[in-house]
Amino acid sequence: MRVLVLGGDGYLGWPTALRFSSCGHEVAVLDNFSRRRWHLQQSTESLIPVLTLEERIAAWRDVSGNEIVPYIGDMEDGELVDRVVAEFVPEAVVHYAEQSSAPYSMQSREAAVETQRNNVIGTLNLLFAIRDRVPDCHLIKLGTMGEYGTPDIDIEEGYIEIEHKGRRDTLPFPKQPGSLYHLSKVHDSHNIHFACRIWGLRATDLNQGVVYGIETEETAREERLSTRFDYDETFGTVLNRFCVQAVIGHPLTVYGKGGQTRGFLNIRDTLRCVELAAANPAALGEFRVFNQFTEQFNVMQLAELVQRTAGELGYEVEIQHYPNPRVEMEEHYYNATHTKLLDLGLEPHFLGEELVRSMLKTIAAHKDRVIERAIVPRTRWKPGELEGDALGTAPEQSAR
Amino acid sequence: MRVLVLGGDGYLGWPTALRFSSCGHEVAVLDNFSRRRWHLQQSTESLIPVLTLEERIAAWRDVSGNEIVPYIGDMEDGELVDRVVAEFVPEAVVHYAEQSSAPYSMQSREAAVETQRNNVIGTLNLLFAIRDRVPDCHLIKLGTMGEYGTPDIDIEEGYIEIEHKGRRDTLPFPKQPGSLYHLSKVHDSHNIHFACRIWGLRATDLNQGVVYGIETEETAREERLSTRFDYDETFGTVLNRFCVQAVIGHPLTVYGKGGQTRGFLNIRDTLRCVELAAANPAALGEFRVFNQFTEQFNVMQLAELVQRTAGELGYEVEIQHYPNPRVEMEEHYYNATHTKLLDLGLEPHFLGEELVRSMLKTIAAHKDRVIERAIVPRTRWKPGELEGDALGTAPEQSAR
Repeated sequence: MRVLVLGGDGYLGWPTALRFSSCGHEVAVLDNFSRRRWHLQQSTESLIPVLTLEERIAAWRDVSGNEIVPYIGDMEDGELVDRVVAEFVPEAVVHYAEQSSAPYSMQSREAAVETQRNNVIGTLNLLFAIRDRVPDCHLIKLGTMGEYGTPDIDIEEGYIEIEHKGRRDTLPFPKQPGSLYHLSKVHDSHNIHFACRIWGLRATDLNQGVVYGIETEETAREERLSTRFDYDETFGTVLNRFCVQAVIGHPLTVYGKGGQTRGFLNIRDTLRCVELAAANPAALGEFRVFNQFTEQFNVMQLAELVQRTAGELGYEVEIQHYPNPRVEMEEHYYNATHTKLLDLGLEPHFLGEELVRSMLKTIAAHKDRVIERAIVPRTRWKPGELEGDALGTAPEQSAR
Repeated sequence: MRVLVLGGDGYLGWPTALRFSSCGHEVAVLDNFSRRRWHLQQSTESLIPVLTLEERIAAWRDVSGNEIVPYIGDMEDGELVDRVVAEFVPEAVVHYAEQSSAPYSMQSREAAVETQRNNVIGTLNLLFAIRDRVPDCHLIKLGTMGEYGTPDIDIEEGYIEIEHKGRRDTLPFPKQPGSLYHLSKVHDSHNIHFACRIWGLRATDLNQGVVYGIETEETAREERLSTRFDYDETFGTVLNRFCVQAVIGHPLTVYGKGGQTRGFLNIRDTLRCVELAAANPAALGEFRVFNQFTEQFNVMQLAELVQRTAGELGYEVEIQHYPNPRVEMEEHYYNATHTKLLDLGLEPHFLGEELVRSMLKTIAAHKDRVIERAIVPRTRWKPGELEGDALGTAPEQSAR
């Protein structure tokens, strides 16, 4: 199969490209290096050193003998997207090429506009390129569980059957996302659904939970194949951040009470889910939605897991509750269905002390690279609100 | 009240500005003249001649003695939006400043991207300007009934109470819009809802039906105050198009069977609805949704009304069914709630022969200006599909 991985230089995109290449598929990646650029802008960096795209492709050639075709460019450039799709003629497109940080999208008007423009227009350009060049191609789009928000009813996979005034219809699940980034994904989902309904395209929207982990089968084969690992308040996901904090002796930064419940999954399962979607494509005209996570946790459960596991390795770990910079419910109902990927054969890597221990060890080897300044939450969902609190320097309370 | 009308040079924006000015409010308009530019691009024009913004503001000064403040600029320019809001300090913003044509948005990738970028980014810039400059200001946003699509259950006003697996929540009504333009409005609605939930802004989303009519109380006061009247396949709404077709002896262009049911309202009621929303603002933090239409019709009912009324005036009117260039259900369930504006005191101008007669007379006075080339549907929702049909020259069947 010919697989085009958009955002193929990123945390998930690169390992995904390796996985498909490793399985014998022809793989191309497209990237504009925006994640690297955003890190430059805020003077932060991946904890694990990452090579340039050209170097990592060369390393993969050395290790596997396989080629990965690189395309460099921005998805806001519709001509470029059209050209890449016309030239590579993908049978599947895996689309990670989006600004994926909620805090980044809330930093300023400029960052919000950049996020929605990049994500919505990039995806729109892609839909036209698929329609015009490869209408049978299967679009596998990374969405997010955050699209749903935290409704007071069970979350279903994309659709919900509604009975209303004696009639009944199955409609898109209502969305109440929690950041301008998450909104961009909601917009994408609506646009892609439309392209399937009207143009007869086929797509799978993977509403992914929060990803954790450092390594995949392929990246572990050689150091030069490592994927990036972000731990800063902008681009780091919560478990990854906590593990870095534990290693450097920084209190775990729990926002508010820590009762926020979300779906989580191991980076290895991200790859497996994308593989399963690609191996079992949506039908023409179908907009299929999978909820892509394996377990639900609240933030305090993760903090306590890291505290306990790190404690056994000799780290003294404090948990601190910071004034929540986000506007979100800190205690709420949350129960999200996630059976469709299991039905396709997903065998989850569940989260446990072993995985945390292995993360802590890898992080320890790079601990000198940690930039402490980037750890405490500074991006406020409501600017001005927390000025008086000297957010990030005066934690509300601490545990342990 | 200080009222800023965005898109104040347009079909609805200009009469809205006059109405608020006429009622003694301080009014400013912002426009980038994109509707005029799009007409230039396709070599079409308003049937009724319209003056430049400066000239019509001068005419209004002559007639009423009132000033309207003009701002010229593009809402994609975040700095400009911020500057205008900071300078004028509006208490209400009426937001019409969007690309509002479904066919335009489906013409090409470029037009689709322009539509979503202009509408989504413009509105996002506005939300930041309101948050930062006038957080108490009431945003009155023109949405569209087309956001809902045609679900098989009754359409409610913005929200629906869902009972699911023994739990219950009131959530945004699920959306399945029928064009990339309508999608841009869905994106706007989600972004505005977020700004209300997270930043505590107040907004009313007016999900408007299809507007018809030529005159309002104020524009009728003098010819120089006329608002634009579009009848072409891109920017003309269905009843307006049918009336022009009847006058020039062109068959009424019914797309497909004509069983498409939608909500409709008179342009005079648009103004009254906006006034009612402004006089009864949403609460801080509230995202209020009104379904803004007064009657439901299907397309054949409108065609027959025009045929009958024009016939009485001596016009020989044919109804022709064209291969539907859109992808939509031509027969479907449709029942949309629309009580909230009635509860606020709206007294509808219902559609009847008298209104159609008056439109036909006004149109007849300008019939020499009609550009026939622009009447038949050429923009296809699925390009390629209808090539063989020589769309627009070989109608499927004709009635009468």
